[in-house]
Amino acid sequence: MIDLPFRPERTSAEPVFRQLAGTLRALIGSGRLAPGTKLPATRELAASLALGRASISHAYDELVREGWLTAHVGQGTFVARGSDPPIRFDFRGGQVDRGSLPGDDLRRAFSRAVARQLGDLSAHQDPRGWLPLRHEIARYLVSRGIACGADDILVVNGAQQAIDLAAHVLVDPGDTVVMEQPGYFGASMAFTASQANLVGVGVDAEGLRTDQLARVLKARRVKLLYTTPAAQSPTGVVLSERRRGELIALADEHQVPILEDDYDSELRYQGPPVAALKTLDGSGQVIYVGTFSKVLFPTLRVGFVVAPAPLLEKMLLARWNADVGTAALSQAALAALLRTGALARHVRRVRKIYAERLRTMVDALARSMPGGTRWTEPHGGLTLWVTLPGGVDAEGVFRAASEAGIAYTRGEVFHFDGRGQSSLNLSFASLPPARIAEGVALLGGMVGRYLPRSARRASSRGRNETHAAIVAGR
Amino acid sequence: MIDLPFRPERTSAEPVFRQLAGTLRALIGSGRLAPGTKLPATRELAASLALGRASISHAYDELVREGWLTAHVGQGTFVARGSDPPIRFDFRGGQVDRGSLPGDDLRRAFSRAVARQLGDLSAHQDPRGWLPLRHEIARYLVSRGIACGADDILVVNGAQQAIDLAAHVLVDPGDTVVMEQPGYFGASMAFTASQANLVGVGVDAEGLRTDQLARVLKARRVKLLYTTPAAQSPTGVVLSERRRGELIALADEHQVPILEDDYDSELRYQGPPVAALKTLDGSGQVIYVGTFSKVLFPTLRVGFVVAPAPLLEKMLLARWNADVGTAALSQAALAALLRTGALARHVRRVRKIYAERLRTMVDALARSMPGGTRWTEPHGGLTLWVTLPGGVDAEGVFRAASEAGIAYTRGEVFHFDGRGQSSLNLSFASLPPARIAEGVALLGGMVGRYLPRSARRASSRGRNETHAAIVAGR
Repeated sequence: MIDLPFRPERTSAEPVFRQLAGTLRALIGSGRLAPGTKLPATRELAASLALGRASISHAYDELVREGWLTAHVGQGTFVARGSDPPIRFDFRGGQVDRGSLPGDDLRRAFSRAVARQLGDLSAHQDPRGWLPLRHEIARYLVSRGIACGADDILVVNGAQQAIDLAAHVLVDPGDTVVMEQPGYFGASMAFTASQANLVGVGVDAEGLRTDQLARVLKARRVKLLYTTPAAQSPTGVVLSERRRGELIALADEHQVPILEDDYDSELRYQGPPVAALKTLDGSGQVIYVGTFSKVLFPTLRVGFVVAPAPLLEKMLLARWNADVGTAALSQAALAALLRTGALARHVRRVRKIYAERLRTMVDALARSMPGGTRWTEPHGGLTLWVTLPGGVDAEGVFRAASEAGIAYTRGEVFHFDGRGQSSLNLSFASLPPARIAEGVALLGGMVGRYLPRSARRASSRGRNETHAAIVAGR
Repeated sequence: MIDLPFRPERTSAEPVFRQLAGTLRALIGSGRLAPGTKLPATRELAASLALGRASISHAYDELVREGWLTAHVGQGTFVARGSDPPIRFDFRGGQVDRGSLPGDDLRRAFSRAVARQLGDLSAHQDPRGWLPLRHEIARYLVSRGIACGADDILVVNGAQQAIDLAAHVLVDPGDTVVMEQPGYFGASMAFTASQANLVGVGVDAEGLRTDQLARVLKARRVKLLYTTPAAQSPTGVVLSERRRGELIALADEHQVPILEDDYDSELRYQGPPVAALKTLDGSGQVIYVGTFSKVLFPTLRVGFVVAPAPLLEKMLLARWNADVGTAALSQAALAALLRTGALARHVRRVRKIYAERLRTMVDALARSMPGGTRWTEPHGGLTLWVTLPGGVDAEGVFRAASEAGIAYTRGEVFHFDGRGQSSLNLSFASLPPARIAEGVALLGGMVGRYLPRSARRASSRGRNETHAAIVAGR
């Protein structure tokens, strides 16, 4: 039996069973509850959460209907085994192209760090991180338009730790946190664990909808706004210039700190570079988060935070309690990759690779998806967001895709309230162009088979009209 | 200005100002509040903590008297600059011998991990940790008498993260957590951050005092017991066989989980090996924590947890939210050091080095400390615990030592309630024997100068009687 990291938010407008279902979707969809895991009996879970059994049963029933769970009479409820067949086309997020990893540079960087600096590295205790790395990060941030010194930087284990620390030091139980919907599930999970009351704001072609945000800020006290302006996660949309100004003005007016997750701004394939929101931050409202998970690889676990001194100090104290500091050899190796220019060379190389893969995926979607399908065409990042035609049996598509060895992340995972069923997040990072085209073609056929009967006829006629649509938000 | 990670525990028998003073001592003594840091004004801190200004002033005044803080009229209150002169004798904890680090083995291990496994490592997503490392840890645990499989292990960023995760999943605000006093400050800080109500249990020559524990368990519901049975942190005392049996029986009777921090069991210099408490754990009450911070070096940031499945599952979900996972290259390199036997060879080598340093320090204490001084003589670990004669001006000793470039960790840091002023924690890990003898001789002279007048005369006569005493606990 497992214990669930869930606490009902009783003051929320959303029924408790939907809150529970949302947590379970995120846990399963992101792979944290493995296929085959047995869920607690409704009686046990009801007791441990101090809820009625009916709430638990409602949540389980909804997830069984949606295919996330399977119920076996007399045995219990289990996480569905979605893709037992081997994965042939892996479109799941959180990956990079393995073939282009800078192995030689990395090997040299680690070897030199061990050979020349092991003594100092073994003993270093600055809770902000290894000073030479913080110097390199400060230099690197000039390219994002951010002026800061080494002492304004806290090195952390990737963006997720930065988000979790911000949740710890800024969010008390019941506080309202606003984030984009769809939005990064790691953020919604961290805020939920801090017992935040999450409020979603929609995303359209210009990014986060500031009109919706303004309404939320008028109606309630908001403790923190989490956003991904450079390439909205998961849609890849860039926050427009106009919206940036509005966002900063709203944050100033309502004194709401902004947590800017700039997770993949380096991976930009067309258009002018997008400055960080932090560059517009006249009053110190923006907590800037960067990571090397996308430009190098996610299991490197090195990221950083730039924040006003009092907040940074609080985060670094919380961070010491969490795990003392980031692995010193990783910090030294990364500092060397930055100093020698090896990282910049690598970024230039992978930009070309990913740009081609993105083009290939967009072209394949245009060729293969039935009419009524919409998708984003990002200028950067590693994923795009597909919304299936109205009425399509998205659960049927997912099952068929899994059986055919096509893996992707379902849209619900990027919604904390269970919406997003008709969307999917496709990463173009890990497969070569030909395989992307092949996988998307297969997937397009499956979507066609799970259209409602009326739409199947229409789609055979009107396949081409759908190109270039962008995600509509809500 | 800084923000403090402190929440008053209003139901505690201890006055709030003492709670605050205890937190500040731990923050300053462990180096997390740097010398020169400005503290918040009493008015501001009182407002932010919803306390009276008098409580804040009392805490500050106490710490100024003790020399932790300095007050400058018109400017505010600052963390005292304890040791501006360069450190010549570093007896502070958390260090290892730099000269004997296995640089060549480490370099090879990282190089091979990058050259042969980078693709897999970059993409690995098992939240329990890199499978080959978990296999090696399971094999390694046989030497500690623990039978477990790779799936019973969660790889974390050192023991501190394991403690913090346990605090997150087991401790709700106001819950009682029991730990040894003196005890590891990283644990008390993590439990305090989870708003635990900490209760201390004394330590004597047989380790944790189970008679005191029994009384605490009768009087109140305890959520978790944190202990360091192999080499009590900071005294180095080994928990006796008899006490081990009593501890397990008490945990079973009262259904209290035990968090066993086995942080340096490999570093044992005499006597038979000490089995882990976990080996006596018939009913799954023991959460076992191990780390490679002491046998390799603290900034490696790799440790692990062995726990019953439901709890391990809950910890790994909390862990994903915290920072996704431990750096993959570090995990792969460590797996190679374990597999090739390089780590075992290194441990055999440093055991000899540390055994000699421990002997040297104990001999130097016997030679140099005035009568009435007591110290532990551990059979393992990297530090020992010195208690100064009654009436000595410990603050004066610390100031004089700092001015002479002698650094050590003060006893208060290992007490969450402000006691321990007359004790100090000395690490013998980082200095060669001759320097240890020299530093301890200097320190002994300082202690002599800060004895009360009466004791100064006595001590010149009776210096030798104090040898071999062990810490008395309370």
